[in-house]
Amino acid sequence: MQAAVAELKEKGNLAKLASKRLVFLSADIKNKALLNISEALLTRQNEILKANKLDYQAAETSGMNAAMLDRLMLSSSRLQGIAQDVKAVASLPDPVGEVIEELILPNGLKLIKKRVPLGVIGAIYESRPNVTIDISVLCLKAGNACILRGGRESLHSNLALAKIVQETAYQTGIPEGAVQFIKSTDRSLVDHMLRMKGVIDLIIPRGGAGLIKFVVENAAMPVVAGGIGVCHTYVDSKADVNKAVAIAYNAKVQRPTVCNALDTLLVHVDIAKKYLPLIATEWRKAGIEMHCDERALAILKSDTSLKLAPAKDKDWGKEFLALIAAIKVVDSLDEAIEHIEHYGSGHSEAIITEEKAAAARFLNEVDAACVYANASTRFTDGGQFGMGAEIGISTQKFHARGPMALKEITSYKWVIIGNGQVRP
Amino acid sequence: MQAAVAELKEKGNLAKLASKRLVFLSADIKNKALLNISEALLTRQNEILKANKLDYQAAETSGMNAAMLDRLMLSSSRLQGIAQDVKAVASLPDPVGEVIEELILPNGLKLIKKRVPLGVIGAIYESRPNVTIDISVLCLKAGNACILRGGRESLHSNLALAKIVQETAYQTGIPEGAVQFIKSTDRSLVDHMLRMKGVIDLIIPRGGAGLIKFVVENAAMPVVAGGIGVCHTYVDSKADVNKAVAIAYNAKVQRPTVCNALDTLLVHVDIAKKYLPLIATEWRKAGIEMHCDERALAILKSDTSLKLAPAKDKDWGKEFLALIAAIKVVDSLDEAIEHIEHYGSGHSEAIITEEKAAAARFLNEVDAACVYANASTRFTDGGQFGMGAEIGISTQKFHARGPMALKEITSYKWVIIGNGQVRP
Repeated sequence: MQAAVAELKEKGNLAKLASKRLVFLSADIKNKALLNISEALLTRQNEILKANKLDYQAAETSGMNAAMLDRLMLSSSRLQGIAQDVKAVASLPDPVGEVIEELILPNGLKLIKKRVPLGVIGAIYESRPNVTIDISVLCLKAGNACILRGGRESLHSNLALAKIVQETAYQTGIPEGAVQFIKSTDRSLVDHMLRMKGVIDLIIPRGGAGLIKFVVENAAMPVVAGGIGVCHTYVDSKADVNKAVAIAYNAKVQRPTVCNALDTLLVHVDIAKKYLPLIATEWRKAGIEMHCDERALAILKSDTSLKLAPAKDKDWGKEFLALIAAIKVVDSLDEAIEHIEHYGSGHSEAIITEEKAAAARFLNEVDAACVYANASTRFTDGGQFGMGAEIGISTQKFHARGPMALKEITSYKWVIIGNGQVRP
Repeated sequence: MQAAVAELKEKGNLAKLASKRLVFLSADIKNKALLNISEALLTRQNEILKANKLDYQAAETSGMNAAMLDRLMLSSSRLQGIAQDVKAVASLPDPVGEVIEELILPNGLKLIKKRVPLGVIGAIYESRPNVTIDISVLCLKAGNACILRGGRESLHSNLALAKIVQETAYQTGIPEGAVQFIKSTDRSLVDHMLRMKGVIDLIIPRGGAGLIKFVVENAAMPVVAGGIGVCHTYVDSKADVNKAVAIAYNAKVQRPTVCNALDTLLVHVDIAKKYLPLIATEWRKAGIEMHCDERALAILKSDTSLKLAPAKDKDWGKEFLALIAAIKVVDSLDEAIEHIEHYGSGHSEAIITEEKAAAARFLNEVDAACVYANASTRFTDGGQFGMGAEIGISTQKFHARGPMALKEITSYKWVIIGNGQVRP
């Protein structure tokens, strides 16, 4: 353990040194490195898939649940998707050096607010190997070094991916040390990492609620927390029923194991009798288990083919990450907004309505990172938002909110150019 | 003490409630409130000056040093300046609702990144009564509630100022509870305040290094720390000597008790013999004590009218806040940059040079909130930067850097408008 701590500190120092040189790296070299990484992910996919198979088999044997197994699994087509995301990041403008604001004061002083890298980003994540690529690639593009600490279950996959990133990046001219991967999966190493203030400028935890809470409470440096998505879709009395069925179906079924999937469906009482049987029939086909409040249950219970259960208190505000949805009938838009305020996690919330005023109120009053009118919450994703990839989804309001990619891992400086000005 | 804690919690809850209504307040009402506050600061100045006199006399009697007394003191002209700043804030665009980004995805989804208030801002500050006005006014304009906890030494002044802000704001239509002032100056109350996560969204400490360190280490919520300014001015070999004298004089003398004042003067060896006697003569007139390294001392010591002392190790990296400057002769731009990297606090750093390449290197390589070419570091100030006033000066890279005003105390949300889009 002492050796692992010493290694962590050494890696921290190497990352810090690399970060000082990364600041001045040209967009050309960074983009070339990213394109080479994208290519290497495909040319060296056997290496990756072999490592991933080791992780997957061990996880299967140990009885990992289906949601976690799905997150862990890599395939040729998933690798192609990841490689494509890396290419997308390469094609984005370099955030470093961007002039955010520019003004000339009456005394002639020229002020330029200029984007600069943050420094060293630490990432602590669980069993999604693609995070190794997403975070290291976004960090490189934004001129940051990174220290990656992945989960035990995906160690082989992460090691293979980190090795490819490091080798390819350094060969292309990225300063050595820019990407550090922590091999030890000893949990107590996380404690040490969280105390490396002055070395790590920002910590990003990605994983379950337990990990995120632990990091938020114990990190000495700034944290951007997120990833917990208790997402509601509210079907208003003036909803287009076809849209409402398609959207709630997509939000729940398309990938139920991720944070932007639907957890609770809120339905206005005036449309519930018409709408609920339609969505329930579709959801049944996908095997969705429905935890219904009294009024929803009364409407649906005659259809014995549905998987129904009475909702319990703990169903509200629960992130299911599974083929389960809670359903509640509400009397008004106000009740829907209040329910979301009480139970939401500030991630993604949607209203389905054809009435502009209702949409406007919902979008304005619901306090979440992403608020939707007439679309699936599944769109909350850096890739979908045109950011190329994402380093995480922030549910806090400080510094960054919603999908985080390049800009969200930068800082800025004020450059002031004068010709002798003094303050009167 | 228990009563004070209960009162603090109650005030926290009232601020939180008010913050939810502040989000929807029109720019008109907010601006009207600010203009009324600006006016009230002048019409009710006797009230304020009387309270300030109580604080000032008590502080004088207790032997407060001149720098602190200067920060504490209010006068009719200082109040006019503060009232003017409030007017300036009123005249700025409302940050709330600002569209930061807008894009339409290929699938027709419209994404709007929109600025929203942060929520409740907590401020813990020492003996500068104008902070009561600056922070409450900036918070109101940005749609935030605030909880103010000022220093014991300025309690009477703060109470008078907070009362005027509260009465005037609530009369103009600001939700009651938006501005909370903590009367108890018991230090242990700060501990309780720092644990009010979920109520206070951001803590801003303003004061000495001890207070800031304590808040950073103990706050459960995000903190923006700053205000410690160890500021260097580097006179390059290619400097215009007249500009260099005027700028270093201004940076040190114009208001030596504040964070953006010059602490250390770095002078290139090739210009030191010409430049040092000139600035030393000017500084002598202002009573500046000069702590010189060996080479600077060798140049200056023949002039016995100067207040000279050999520099000690602790002079480098020291924030003097007084009529003292450290002076060091360096061999190169590189040595100056390295010295600043080692001893600077990331606040404000300046180069004086006519050589563009040297200026460009300094501005690019020095890692500070504000980097200057040929101007006084005294300009680092929200008011000077056209922000109307400032809530603090951040020396961290996370969230906000340099002078903080309206934008820096906001968050944003993503508003997504669709017409039935689902994720493929």
